[in-house]
Amino acid sequence: MTAINIFRNAPDLRTVAPGEVLFSEGDTGDVMYAVVEGTLHLSANGRVVDEIGEGQIVGEMALIDQSPRSATVIAATDAVVAPVDRKRFVYLVQEHPTFALQVMELMAARLRKANAALD
Amino acid sequence: MTAINIFRNAPDLRTVAPGEVLFSEGDTGDVMYAVVEGTLHLSANGRVVDEIGEGQIVGEMALIDQSPRSATVIAATDAVVAPVDRKRFVYLVQEHPTFALQVMELMAARLRKANAALD
Repeated sequence: MTAINIFRNAPDLRTVAPGEVLFSEGDTGDVMYAVVEGTLHLSANGRVVDEIGEGQIVGEMALIDQSPRSATVIAATDAVVAPVDRKRFVYLVQEHPTFALQVMELMAARLRKANAALD
Repeated sequence: MTAINIFRNAPDLRTVAPGEVLFSEGDTGDVMYAVVEGTLHLSANGRVVDEIGEGQIVGEMALIDQSPRSATVIAATDAVVAPVDRKRFVYLVQEHPTFALQVMELMAARLRKANAALD
């Protein structure tokens, strides 16, 4: 899967410990996270539906459409994430078209996965 | 839902008649379509799962990740669509960041819908 590696040197990296909740289903969210190190679990309705690893992003949906969080994200290992707010996200899309295409690739992969689960 | 209206004056608009298949599940696809007029039906496993109307796009997933079509799209009414190939798509993302954000909004809406159907 596509890896987005432009956040490794972000100035505001955040470390999370195993079991730490990054955000919860239903929360208002205006930040997405790029995973720089470690692994996070994405849960919906109490079950883990996806694993988010290095170079992946999570929380982009609330950022994009300003809706409440659709899932809960918990660190599965020690992890380092880079928070990206809407302003920085729009800047990245404008300045780095490759970033936009990578975000779309990740979303397409998730859509295919969700659709496959519906079969 | 977000509407993308920059295709109204595209030079290569294509008209489709009710019942006409734009593409079928499993096809190789390297073109997405922006709907300029009319309504299309998106079917997966033989049932209509979504309606695609004016200002929406369809077929962006195969364009983004070069995988086979994940659904079948059939015109539900007389419709006018603008085909957009990968080269033009990348150009649009580069030159019109708003376009990229709109595509992401549409994908986020579809992801939320697919996830809701999984509940």
